[in-house]
Amino acid sequence: MDGERPVTPAEQPQAACSAGEAAARAGWSAVAEPGDPVLDALLRTYSAAQAWEAVRAGTPLPLPGTAVSTTAYRRWERWQACARDTDVDGMLTRAGELGIRLVVPGDPEWPSQLDLLAERRPYALWVRGTHDLRNACLRSVSIVGSRAASAYGLHVAVEMAATLAHHGWCVVSGGAYGIDGAAHRGALSGDAATVAVLACGVDLAYPKGHEQLFAEVVNHGVVVSEYPPGTAPTRHAFLVRNRLIAALTPGTVVVEAGQRSGAMNTAAHAQELGRTLMAVPGPVTSALSAGCHRLLRDYQAVCVTGARDVMEQLSPLGAAEGDSSGGVQVSADLLDDTAQRVLGALPERGSAGVARIAAASGLGPDAALRQLGLLAAAGHVERTPTGWRRRIPGARRPRG
Amino acid sequence: MDGERPVTPAEQPQAACSAGEAAARAGWSAVAEPGDPVLDALLRTYSAAQAWEAVRAGTPLPLPGTAVSTTAYRRWERWQACARDTDVDGMLTRAGELGIRLVVPGDPEWPSQLDLLAERRPYALWVRGTHDLRNACLRSVSIVGSRAASAYGLHVAVEMAATLAHHGWCVVSGGAYGIDGAAHRGALSGDAATVAVLACGVDLAYPKGHEQLFAEVVNHGVVVSEYPPGTAPTRHAFLVRNRLIAALTPGTVVVEAGQRSGAMNTAAHAQELGRTLMAVPGPVTSALSAGCHRLLRDYQAVCVTGARDVMEQLSPLGAAEGDSSGGVQVSADLLDDTAQRVLGALPERGSAGVARIAAASGLGPDAALRQLGLLAAAGHVERTPTGWRRRIPGARRPRG
Repeated sequence: MDGERPVTPAEQPQAACSAGEAAARAGWSAVAEPGDPVLDALLRTYSAAQAWEAVRAGTPLPLPGTAVSTTAYRRWERWQACARDTDVDGMLTRAGELGIRLVVPGDPEWPSQLDLLAERRPYALWVRGTHDLRNACLRSVSIVGSRAASAYGLHVAVEMAATLAHHGWCVVSGGAYGIDGAAHRGALSGDAATVAVLACGVDLAYPKGHEQLFAEVVNHGVVVSEYPPGTAPTRHAFLVRNRLIAALTPGTVVVEAGQRSGAMNTAAHAQELGRTLMAVPGPVTSALSAGCHRLLRDYQAVCVTGARDVMEQLSPLGAAEGDSSGGVQVSADLLDDTAQRVLGALPERGSAGVARIAAASGLGPDAALRQLGLLAAAGHVERTPTGWRRRIPGARRPRG
Repeated sequence: MDGERPVTPAEQPQAACSAGEAAARAGWSAVAEPGDPVLDALLRTYSAAQAWEAVRAGTPLPLPGTAVSTTAYRRWERWQACARDTDVDGMLTRAGELGIRLVVPGDPEWPSQLDLLAERRPYALWVRGTHDLRNACLRSVSIVGSRAASAYGLHVAVEMAATLAHHGWCVVSGGAYGIDGAAHRGALSGDAATVAVLACGVDLAYPKGHEQLFAEVVNHGVVVSEYPPGTAPTRHAFLVRNRLIAALTPGTVVVEAGQRSGAMNTAAHAQELGRTLMAVPGPVTSALSAGCHRLLRDYQAVCVTGARDVMEQLSPLGAAEGDSSGGVQVSADLLDDTAQRVLGALPERGSAGVARIAAASGLGPDAALRQLGLLAAAGHVERTPTGWRRRIPGARRPRG
C-alpha cells in the first residue's frame, strides 16, 4: 500500500503546508461539496490560496480541461456566492477555541492514504481529539453496519472492536447508533484509539444521544469531518463521508447490514479502493445480515467471524497480529531534537504510559503523544496494551 | 459435466450389464472395501465375473501394475477368505424379497457421474425405492450438516429442501439425525424425490429413530448404499459414503457444521470433484456454524441463504430455476416400443400423475416410472410439482 508508507520526520518540513494555504483550504471546505473533481483539478493546477483569492474576487481561473468548463462555470458561480459569506479567520478562531484543528495535505497529521481517492480526495479535514489522525490510522480497521442493529450485531461489534483495540488496532467508524456506536464503545473498552468520521461538523453531536460517546472519542482518539464546525448533516453527506471511512483504513468489516444499508455503500468504496473487504455472517433468517451475505456471495468479501480473522486478513503473512508499519525503521540520526528527547524518555525495557513519558521528556502530554505517533510511524516505538515501548529493529511483536 | 450426459435409450443395450457380471459385482461389494483402487484396477482389466471366479478359486489374477503388487497380494488373501463365505445367489434372492435391487455400471439406472470418482468409484449400488436413482440425480443437490444441529439449522434445512423439492429438485443426503433428516423431511413435504445414501445396508434403519423416515424415502425416492443388505455401519463407512453424496449431485450445500463435522468431509469431496460447494452462514457465536464459516473463508464455498441462491448457483446462466438436462432431446424414432407407449400415454397439454400414465400405457406403476425417468433423461418429458408432462424441444421451464 503505497499510500501508507510512513512519512518520516525528516520528510515533513518539505511537505508542510503554509498557514495561508491551510486557511484557503478551510475556506474551500466551507463552500464546495466534498470530493468535487472540478475543485480537485483547480487545486492541482493552482495553489489553494490562489484559487481562494480568485473566487473571493469573482474572477474565475481558467481550468486545465475544457470538457468540464460549463459544469465548472456553474460551480464557480455557486462557490463565489458562498465564498462572499465565508469568514475564514473567524472559522479558524472559533475552531481553535473548541479544540478543533485543521489538517491539510502535506501536514504531518494528513493521512496520505486518502490520496488514493484521487479526484475525490478531501481538501481538508477538521479534527478534534487527543490522538494523531495519521498515526491512529496506520494500524486500523473500519467497522461499520446498520443503525438498527440487532442484539447479535451489537454484541459482535463490541467484542470485535474490543479485541482489536486490545491488540493495538485502531477502530474507525461513523458516529451513528447501532454498529458504529458499538464499535467505538468496544474500542474504548479495549484501550486503543478510535476514530469517528462524521457527516457534520465535529463540534455537533449527531445523533444527540451520542454526545457523551463523542466526548469520550475526543479524549481517546479523534473525531474527523470534511465539513467545517457548525455544519449540520444532510443525507448526501453520509454517503460522501463513507468513502473516507473506507479510504482511511486497509480494511473494512461490515458487521451487520440490510440490503440497502449505508454500510453497503462503505463496502463498495472499500472494494473500489482495493481495500480488504470483510463481512460478518449472521442467521440467514435475519434481514439485518442480508447485506453481509450479499457481500460474501457477490462481492468476494472475506468471511470473518471475529477479531482474530480480521487481524489475520490485515497482517502480513506469518504475523498473526502483524505489524502494519512493516518493520521499516528510520535512522535515529534523522529524528529531530524533540523526537530524540521523547525516544530517550522511554524505558529500555517494558512500556510506559504517555503521562510518564511526557514528564520524563519535559513535554506536555499532547505534544508527547504526537511525537510518539511520529516515532511509531518511523518504526522506533510501538503501542502496547499498557503504554508505549521501544521497538527492536526486525523484532516481531509477540503474540497475545 | 461429461458424467451427466443422459444415456439415451438407444445406447443402453450395448452398455447393459449381464446377470453374471451383476452377480459378480454383488459379490465384490460384499468382500472388498468400497472404493478400493486395487480392485478398481482389477475390474478395469478383467470382467467382474472373471475376477470373482478367480477369487473364489483362490487363484490370484496378475495385476496391470507391479508397484501395487504387495498391497494387492495382501488384499487378495483377505478377499479370498471373505469370498469363500459369500453366497451371492442367496444375497440377491434375499435382496429381491426385500425390494432391493442391484445397480451396476452400464445399467440404465447407474448414475454415470460417479465415474468421476475414478479409481474410487463404487463397484455396485444397492438401491431400494420407487424412483430411478439416475433420473432422480439429474436435477439434484446434496444438503448435509451436523447431527447435533440447532433449531436454526434444522429450520434452514427443512425450508431449503422443501423449496428445492417444490421446484423439482431432488435432495440427496445421508440418513443421520439433524440436518440429514431435516433435509429429507423438507424434500418429502415438497413432493419431490429424495435420495438417502447410507453407510449400512439399505434394509437397516440406522439410526433406529429414522426407521419411519427411511420407509417414506423408499416410497418417495430411493435409499442407496454401496454395502450389501444386512451390513452394519462402521465409523469408516460414513467417511467412505460421503464421497458418493458429493459425487451424485452437481452441488453440495453445508447447512450447519462444526469444525470437525462429517459434513466437512463431504464438502472436501465436493470441492475435490469440482462440484459447486455452498455453505449457509449462521451466527458467528454458534460453534455449529464454525465449519460453514471456514468453508466460506478458506474453501471458496459460495454463501447461500436459501433455495433460490442454490438454484441460481446450479442452473445454467439465464435460467433461474434451470433445467439441468441441458435441452438435449433424443429423437423419438430411437425410443423403444415401451418408451414410445409411455410417451404416448402423456396428455398433450398439462401434466399427469404416474398412476394415470401407467394405466394409460398398460404398464405397472414401477415400470411406468422407470420409463418416465428414461424419457426425462432423453429430454422428452419433465417432472413438475403435479406430475409429468411432455417437454417441448427448446422450451424453457416456466418459472414458479
